[in-house]
Amino acid sequence: MSGKIKAGVVGATGYAGAELTRLMLGHPSADVAAVSSVSFEGQKLSDVYPNLLGLADLTLENEDSVIEKSDVVFAALPHGLSEELAVKCLAKGKKLIDIGADFRLKDPLEYKRWYGLDYKHPELHEKSVYIIPELMRDLYNGQPIIGNPGCYPTSVALALAPVMKFFDVPDGGVIIDSKSGVTGSGRGLTQNTHFPDCNEAFAPYKIASHRHTPEIEQTLSFLAGKRVTVSFTPHLLPLNRGIVSTCYVSFGKKTDFGEIYGAYTEFYKNEKFVRVLPRGMTANLKNVRMSNFCDISLHYDERTNRLIAVGAIDNMVKGAAGQAIQNMNIMFGIAEDEGLRLAAPAF
Amino acid sequence: MSGKIKAGVVGATGYAGAELTRLMLGHPSADVAAVSSVSFEGQKLSDVYPNLLGLADLTLENEDSVIEKSDVVFAALPHGLSEELAVKCLAKGKKLIDIGADFRLKDPLEYKRWYGLDYKHPELHEKSVYIIPELMRDLYNGQPIIGNPGCYPTSVALALAPVMKFFDVPDGGVIIDSKSGVTGSGRGLTQNTHFPDCNEAFAPYKIASHRHTPEIEQTLSFLAGKRVTVSFTPHLLPLNRGIVSTCYVSFGKKTDFGEIYGAYTEFYKNEKFVRVLPRGMTANLKNVRMSNFCDISLHYDERTNRLIAVGAIDNMVKGAAGQAIQNMNIMFGIAEDEGLRLAAPAF
Amino acid sequence: MSGKIKAGVVGATGYAGAELTRLMLGHPSADVAAVSSVSFEGQKLSDVYPNLLGLADLTLENEDSVIEKSDVVFAALPHGLSEELAVKCLAKGKKLIDIGADFRLKDPLEYKRWYGLDYKHPELHEKSVYIIPELMRDLYNGQPIIGNPGCYPTSVALALAPVMKFFDVPDGGVIIDSKSGVTGSGRGLTQNTHFPDCNEAFAPYKIASHRHTPEIEQTLSFLAGKRVTVSFTPHLLPLNRGIVSTCYVSFGKKTDFGEIYGAYTEFYKNEKFVRVLPRGMTANLKNVRMSNFCDISLHYDERTNRLIAVGAIDNMVKGAAGQAIQNMNIMFGIAEDEGLRLAAPAF
Amino acid sequence: MSGKIKAGVVGATGYAGAELTRLMLGHPSADVAAVSSVSFEGQKLSDVYPNLLGLADLTLENEDSVIEKSDVVFAALPHGLSEELAVKCLAKGKKLIDIGADFRLKDPLEYKRWYGLDYKHPELHEKSVYIIPELMRDLYNGQPIIGNPGCYPTSVALALAPVMKFFDVPDGGVIIDSKSGVTGSGRGLTQNTHFPDCNEAFAPYKIASHRHTPEIEQTLSFLAGKRVTVSFTPHLLPLNRGIVSTCYVSFGKKTDFGEIYGAYTEFYKNEKFVRVLPRGMTANLKNVRMSNFCDISLHYDERTNRLIAVGAIDNMVKGAAGQAIQNMNIMFGIAEDEGLRLAAPAF
Repeated sequence: MSGKIKAGVVGATGYAGAELTRLMLGHPSADVAAVSSVSFEGQKLSDVYPNLLGLADLTLENEDSVIEKSDVVFAALPHGLSEELAVKCLAKGKKLIDIGADFRLKDPLEYKRWYGLDYKHPELHEKSVYIIPELMRDLYNGQPIIGNPGCYPTSVALALAPVMKFFDVPDGGVIIDSKSGVTGSGRGLTQNTHFPDCNEAFAPYKIASHRHTPEIEQTLSFLAGKRVTVSFTPHLLPLNRGIVSTCYVSFGKKTDFGEIYGAYTEFYKNEKFVRVLPRGMTANLKNVRMSNFCDISLHYDERTNRLIAVGAIDNMVKGAAGQAIQNMNIMFGIAEDEGLRLAAPAF
Repeated sequence: MSGKIKAGVVGATGYAGAELTRLMLGHPSADVAAVSSVSFEGQKLSDVYPNLLGLADLTLENEDSVIEKSDVVFAALPHGLSEELAVKCLAKGKKLIDIGADFRLKDPLEYKRWYGLDYKHPELHEKSVYIIPELMRDLYNGQPIIGNPGCYPTSVALALAPVMKFFDVPDGGVIIDSKSGVTGSGRGLTQNTHFPDCNEAFAPYKIASHRHTPEIEQTLSFLAGKRVTVSFTPHLLPLNRGIVSTCYVSFGKKTDFGEIYGAYTEFYKNEKFVRVLPRGMTANLKNVRMSNFCDISLHYDERTNRLIAVGAIDNMVKGAAGQAIQNMNIMFGIAEDEGLRLAAPAF
Repeated sequence: MSGKIKAGVVGATGYAGAELTRLMLGHPSADVAAVSSVSFEGQKLSDVYPNLLGLADLTLENEDSVIEKSDVVFAALPHGLSEELAVKCLAKGKKLIDIGADFRLKDPLEYKRWYGLDYKHPELHEKSVYIIPELMRDLYNGQPIIGNPGCYPTSVALALAPVMKFFDVPDGGVIIDSKSGVTGSGRGLTQNTHFPDCNEAFAPYKIASHRHTPEIEQTLSFLAGKRVTVSFTPHLLPLNRGIVSTCYVSFGKKTDFGEIYGAYTEFYKNEKFVRVLPRGMTANLKNVRMSNFCDISLHYDERTNRLIAVGAIDNMVKGAAGQAIQNMNIMFGIAEDEGLRLAAPAF
Repeated sequence: MSGKIKAGVVGATGYAGAELTRLMLGHPSADVAAVSSVSFEGQKLSDVYPNLLGLADLTLENEDSVIEKSDVVFAALPHGLSEELAVKCLAKGKKLIDIGADFRLKDPLEYKRWYGLDYKHPELHEKSVYIIPELMRDLYNGQPIIGNPGCYPTSVALALAPVMKFFDVPDGGVIIDSKSGVTGSGRGLTQNTHFPDCNEAFAPYKIASHRHTPEIEQTLSFLAGKRVTVSFTPHLLPLNRGIVSTCYVSFGKKTDFGEIYGAYTEFYKNEKFVRVLPRGMTANLKNVRMSNFCDISLHYDERTNRLIAVGAIDNMVKGAAGQAIQNMNIMFGIAEDEGLRLAAPAF
């Protein structure tokens, strides 16, 4: 390919779309060529996001126009809308990276069960692949569609991959207690995310019923080589960005923590975006905010024979837009960390 | 007793002491008669806490002077200091309510193991009683010392009492994932609680090693009538007040949620400070802030046969100063909710 | 009157109405007898505000029903709606305290200019009186309607009253830079008050065009005995409650700060809710949150001959619901601080 | 010069030093070659700032070692310490950019008055130059020392430059009401910046006595061509980053706002880091956070003939480390925006 990758963003005024557009400003080999928004068509993106004033002189167009102008389209849409977009992209020979939920679950019954919808174009799913790069990059072999992982599942899968892969975790032995910043709820207005209702507040939500559950289980099962069922409880943190997933793995018998720790450092030794923290440190979302890192800290409860694996990511970067760019880099065969060498601010 | 109860506060400039003094301003049957502080002796309390200007005209004295002027002394001290104070109080015929940790653990070995100290005056512990009022008020029969519960243990014990008492919870079946506001760390300065380091940050701490663990286990064992061991992980929330404890109870077999829910509503039906929320609602610390309530919500994960019991309290009120006043009310035989009929602000 | 005052709240699910209902729970001589809401009619108030669960067992009714059951009606409505309510109240012989804006401005032209509406019932305004208790309580002589002051105007009027009344402030010599917590914007959802857009953000708004400007000028003119025009800039603070108004008074010539300070302490010496802070201290909204206090600190810039008077209140209490109760107490001839002896939490 | 600029940071564990080190990671023509810290000498920078783990493998050394290894030294030190460092740098032929306060004030009497110290090496100040690039870049002609501007003064000078330069502002006509995030107070622990004391709090501080006052006046006087005296009030915002300065300019007579607005857009038309916002928009610190931008919005109060100019910057970037890099770029004759093309996150 000559010249820069031309990327389009459908749903550019949602949080994931806006963050993706911002991150792409620093990508040396790709540019955002066009953006669309149903609600703001015809306006400038910088009217909606004044942080981009003078940086991204993009006018919000419609979907078709974005497809036309792009080599690859990022879809940042509510679930149920990406298949139709995929049909259009493929018809025009364009690639698609779906930041939404429509290309994550392999099993149509699971999609139906958790999202209430059928896949309308099953053949599309044959041409798509779900990729958490650190765990599945070798599954990419030219598919025109990549299903980009959800935010919670990314934090959990990376925090648990080595233990699920290399150790014997009893059935029912995984409990995941996750906490996410408010950007995870998106740009849409709700009473729950109204500042005075949300600030100085904290609670779980969608206990044992969050739609990221089957995606988590799909990946853990893939890693363990057997069906894994988990309890998953998300909570809403009164801060903007970041997820901490505190993952409890009950072994039911004494297990050597040194071996576990060693398996993690070995597994991730060549990864640029995963930091297995030194023993004694604890993962904190503040150290990964605005970056594509996943920090993992490992702790062992000798009294109950449990591993507590803590995974921290920025939900908008590694959990959405950043990982989507990482997947684009894989798709186009360029260095995986291009445009993503971002250091979290300390404060 | 004629007249109002004269209460003294030793350690009045710490957060728990200051909150207790503030709450007592609204108590119809008790007054704060004297306050002490090692660091600020001789200054006015309102110099340190200007919110009390014009409301509490108290000068910080020394410990002995506070004992002299009081019927009951509240100790808000770091662990290891309350026994000596208790000796002095008892010598003068005064009662003591210890908001600190020195009269919580019955087993001296547990105290030694988790706090690194021996009880120097074992006989004092014969004269003391640990009371979470809703669970143990009938244990009070005139003891001169009450050990006031810790914040995390209060939230957990209330959230789990009925299930531990009336249901068969397998050994090792309890995992507690707690989150606390920053006041839980006290008034002392640390890098971790420096605003720019703490704001927009979130992480667990003291995983599998927090000193509230044995206190939690002591109460759950008392309730279950057998030894209970738990995994306990506290986290630091970037907000001032409140604890949410998300408690996972793994039954290992199908259990009737309706029965569990019924046991809770029955158990707490006459309690003024415990609200078992209607099914479908979720406990949020914002609804109990500044109040002495504990909100409990119950959720059942059908897929994994787990109860998720969520307990929310204000760590400084029900988790410290408010519960201490509740215990004082028990000690003096007055209505348990006197001075504590506080409604949480909605925002 | 025998028995407690029966208060009704029209617009009880807005922030001011909800806060008033909560505060009234602690009032010894008044009860909330009925509440209304257009949006939630038929539901329980505690469905909308779960902090009130078990405390206020009130069902949301309609306006007429509230009037019927009440001695005094509090109106917490958007501007333009209170006159019709007043007509109904007066027809039934009930009193009205308008927390909204419709009975604040004496000059119909000012109301028209800033709110775009005419007074439809000018005669009602003859029967109403606007009262900031500390400055105007002697204006109350039985009027059936009290116009309750706005939040910003309360903080400014109290911070500037003595200097406007007793000193010679040149024309154009007053600039007011105010900052308010987000509850000031109410419960309604807006992009601006969506948590991720509002958190870690700060900006002025409605510069030189905020509707509280004429109310501020009306009171300062009343105090000065001459027409006063001000520049007023409000800002939105990323916190829930509280206003700080930093008021600049340019004397244009050397003025004795000791005299000014003395005038303040003398003027407010008998006031229960105004604290003129000791010289050297600075007013902070945290010391008045959840209380009916107004803290005032005074500072003099010798280099430019300016007084900087800082006024801090809780916008929802002294700036709305608390002051409305204070006005109710005046209306019914009971102690002005009944139900309002609240101490701000230190944290 | 062949190869990259070798930069050293003295005081690298303070907030400004840490931010500078982080920002330099993205600079294409410069590297941080060495860092020092008195408190943490011998430790790794990433032990203190784990956000830098895997990104900056730097061990904290001593000052002399840093000078040795660097072409240019950034000093991020408390006032009073930079002159000695400058002596050492110049002796070794190294350049110095002082992020602290010691090379900002030209008049030794002003330095003495506000900082309580004498300049010990007056000759150094002949070799130094204070530069806000947008206003004074042409003053740079090879001086070995650049005094980097303070955070508040940067926001004020940029917000007021065109009006001070091209319009007739009466003596005493400028009042500046500034608000800063908590990082402005630095990494050192204070009660004021302890999370529970600082969160949900807001107040002014150092009213009419802040040390940035003479620096502001020095620049405004330089721009106006006459002595300008201002009233300056800083406030502490409960958020991490950013300054908003609300600047009031009293003309005392009708002044054409269109002309003022035109003067601003003309003056800044070629600047990459100053955005004069479209009329009707208001500067918000959230749109400049983590970036080197200064956003300026202009408002005119017709009723009082005042310009309200609002300047927003990130205090740690444009107000400290970012501007220091911009000055380094000037010093080394490379493009002024190298390493600084950062887009603020929208959330």
